[in-house]
Amino acid sequence: MAAAEFWYEFASTYSYPAAMRVASLAEARGVTIAWRPFLLGSIFATQGWRDSPFNIYPAKGRYMWRDLQRICAALKLALKRPEPFPQNSLLAARTALALEGEARANFSRLVYAAEFGEGLPIADRTTIAALLAKLGLDPEGILAQAEGEANKARLKAEGARAAELGIIGAPSLVTDDGEVFWGNDRLEQGLDWVAGRRD
Amino acid sequence: MAAAEFWYEFASTYSYPAAMRVASLAEARGVTIAWRPFLLGSIFATQGWRDSPFNIYPAKGRYMWRDLQRICAALKLALKRPEPFPQNSLLAARTALALEGEARANFSRLVYAAEFGEGLPIADRTTIAALLAKLGLDPEGILAQAEGEANKARLKAEGARAAELGIIGAPSLVTDDGEVFWGNDRLEQGLDWVAGRRD
Repeated sequence: MAAAEFWYEFASTYSYPAAMRVASLAEARGVTIAWRPFLLGSIFATQGWRDSPFNIYPAKGRYMWRDLQRICAALKLALKRPEPFPQNSLLAARTALALEGEARANFSRLVYAAEFGEGLPIADRTTIAALLAKLGLDPEGILAQAEGEANKARLKAEGARAAELGIIGAPSLVTDDGEVFWGNDRLEQGLDWVAGRRD
Repeated sequence: MAAAEFWYEFASTYSYPAAMRVASLAEARGVTIAWRPFLLGSIFATQGWRDSPFNIYPAKGRYMWRDLQRICAALKLALKRPEPFPQNSLLAARTALALEGEARANFSRLVYAAEFGEGLPIADRTTIAALLAKLGLDPEGILAQAEGEANKARLKAEGARAAELGIIGAPSLVTDDGEVFWGNDRLEQGLDWVAGRRD
């Protein structure tokens, strides 16, 4: 079966609509998705950025929020800007990585809905624990695993792998033949590529 | 009739496929397009950039060229990277601005085809003069007008207007109600907006 990796960062605004869309778009094309949470921080740092480019460049930030508003309206997704922006995504990323398969995908969608749909603080342990409980999972056990040394190291390795693949932003779809499609607006094109429709 | 402005920069890679697509996409939706050539330089300068962001951030540049290759292949557009990149677009922009209506649109498409389809140096007077001649226009007369003080000042004013509209990159489609849609990949969405399909 055709397969693609969906690389996403919980602090990334455009990853929100992408995370909400990717499963059904992939299913419609018979493509299997591996969910790969990672942190963009080290990739941004190599570009000299210590904050979100949407904060560093205010005009770009204004454009992005309006663009996202239009996108979410078209998809009938709630949108509420979290404060501060960007949210610290470390705990959410570690937690997602500690889960596997459908649990990881479901948890990730819940995080995005909480963060950008309701404006909730995803850096808070209580927010993350509540989302895990909502999925019928054991919050304390999973958080302990998420913050274990092995999982922390694994998340760092994921970031290094992302850079190696040529990922420069999130979300990015990486195909089985190494193509990178960056952006919520490239999901269809990337999945078509994987499904063999490369016209 | 519904109307939109198409703001483009001759040094901009993604403006190439957009310039080749915008007329037929607009016609299909009954939208009139005003072609607005401008220079991104002063907008980039406010972000601290003195070169193309695709040169400043090499990983971003690598991604962009591959992305553009895929886009041009799908549209069956030739693609040849001009050297140096970016090309100095001042003369082409002044010349386009000195033309009106269909002549401006036709000239602009020829510039993009020469620059990114054939890799020709668009900063050269001989290139620009040849394109004008191809359109049956008077190269010397138009170049003299293009480099007149009034036209130079007009191009500067266009750049200021672009910044005022909230434009942060090229191509950008600006709707009659002030929405900005940035990127070749937002053309359809922007034109749908103008045509009243704002779902």
